[in-house]
Amino acid sequence: MRRVLVPWPQLIGRMGGRWPDGLDVDVYDGKGDPPEQADDVELYVMPYAKPSALALLERMPSLRVLQVLTAGVDAVIDRIGPDVTLCNGRGLHDASTAELALGLMLAAQREIPHWSANQRERNWDPHFTRSLADSTVLILGYGSIGSALEARLLACECEVIRVASRPRPAERIHGPDDLPELLPRTTVLANILPATPATAKFVNAERLALLPDDALVVNVGRGATVDTEALLKEVSSGRLRAALDVTDPEPLPADHPLWTLPNVLITPHVAGGSNTFYPRAEKFVADQLRRFAAGEALANVVDR
Amino acid sequence: MRRVLVPWPQLIGRMGGRWPDGLDVDVYDGKGDPPEQADDVELYVMPYAKPSALALLERMPSLRVLQVLTAGVDAVIDRIGPDVTLCNGRGLHDASTAELALGLMLAAQREIPHWSANQRERNWDPHFTRSLADSTVLILGYGSIGSALEARLLACECEVIRVASRPRPAERIHGPDDLPELLPRTTVLANILPATPATAKFVNAERLALLPDDALVVNVGRGATVDTEALLKEVSSGRLRAALDVTDPEPLPADHPLWTLPNVLITPHVAGGSNTFYPRAEKFVADQLRRFAAGEALANVVDR
Repeated sequence: MRRVLVPWPQLIGRMGGRWPDGLDVDVYDGKGDPPEQADDVELYVMPYAKPSALALLERMPSLRVLQVLTAGVDAVIDRIGPDVTLCNGRGLHDASTAELALGLMLAAQREIPHWSANQRERNWDPHFTRSLADSTVLILGYGSIGSALEARLLACECEVIRVASRPRPAERIHGPDDLPELLPRTTVLANILPATPATAKFVNAERLALLPDDALVVNVGRGATVDTEALLKEVSSGRLRAALDVTDPEPLPADHPLWTLPNVLITPHVAGGSNTFYPRAEKFVADQLRRFAAGEALANVVDR
Repeated sequence: MRRVLVPWPQLIGRMGGRWPDGLDVDVYDGKGDPPEQADDVELYVMPYAKPSALALLERMPSLRVLQVLTAGVDAVIDRIGPDVTLCNGRGLHDASTAELALGLMLAAQREIPHWSANQRERNWDPHFTRSLADSTVLILGYGSIGSALEARLLACECEVIRVASRPRPAERIHGPDDLPELLPRTTVLANILPATPATAKFVNAERLALLPDDALVVNVGRGATVDTEALLKEVSSGRLRAALDVTDPEPLPADHPLWTLPNVLITPHVAGGSNTFYPRAEKFVADQLRRFAAGEALANVVDR
């Protein structure tokens, strides 16, 4: 019997009421006490967004497969040996992350935080606002989340520009070399870059300076891919606006100047964390357990 | 020369730099002093969302055509004689209204007002939220705005149910008779009903009671089409949630209990009022002036 740790008791319901043959499955949701015995765990499906779940990794010398539920693997990649197969949650957060990115854009353009503040003061005081329709949105880090965001933006009557780490002209995907030409006609920059050594502070002062006045910078990727000081300078002056689900540092300290700017909207890294995630994640993990039990090739293996 | 009043000086730019032959065009934007002489105005393009523009109607005995820029005509229909041709702004607000409806849904499901309030307190405190994806959205008053909203919702991975005043099975449009069967599986009710005698308090206690617990009621139609007292009861108990761009009474008085409920989001009738409106409205009015000058049939004539 191979020991497996999964985060949801209800997972068995998606597997026809019984775990696959050969697997000894325990549940650890990352909230209660961690299991006393972890040294025989071979497959660990790490609970989503739980710091204590990360610490447990150090007590798993028998680990063969680590399945994380995030798309990014920056939190775990330095904590496991080279013989551990690392699988990510690519695809599971597409709908949730794309819809928060869209929600941030609509909230910023249509001033929902402003109306909400007026509501608190029982103040009915309308004015015209920007719109999202007719915007030109540059998706930086175009991949599966970007594709889900693009579908939403096209329905919202936006023009979409695709940019990824390598150009693929046949798919109308630009590379970073085209940014000096593309950024000046971008009205919304949607950053979905993952955190890697190559993307650290990729959105820097020079690139921000190429955006037109009043452009909106949205970040649902990773905080470290934006130069916070450079962004702070542009939003403090009022030249640019921002809607940030991720920050650097994160969590954002209480004394950070980004909190108080009227043209900055901050959500606390909740893009992936909505109910739409669970059905997709449970179905994926159930399939992954079947593959693991049957000795088949796993899905979403990270090349590292 | 036939006298015409239009709201935008820049309109002439869309007409090739000169007004059509036979028209004597003046500009009144609804904000400054109204024109002293109005008794010879034959075509009045009424400024958008300006009460003083409405009062001017009473000084226009020669009026032949009233062009309003709203989709609804409830504000003017009793103020003009039967011989005046009334044209509305159907289509001009589709993108703007549909995107605010979508923004309200995303803001409510993803709790953007909550994060915005936490931002004011510099408080980074994430939790899981509802999603918009996987929702079943019933569009009540399916027409051109509903169609624009539907396109956005389908891209957001929602199921959409179309309901209009008359069923059209070939277009998958249900009539009101189907509501008892449809409302219990609706998670978001998107009300776009116009204000007519037939739609007064159409969304009443009985229909609200058919919605499942935690359903979201969005109103970007007209306030009078919802029974405010019935809605207030359902949101006060916490059983339903609401996101309202229009209310009854409107503006909402400062002492109204709807303002202070945590599960109600209020915007002050701004769905149509975004920048995406102007290019569409100016192009439409330019075409309408050409038709008027040439004696052609006008567009968007309201059947009354």
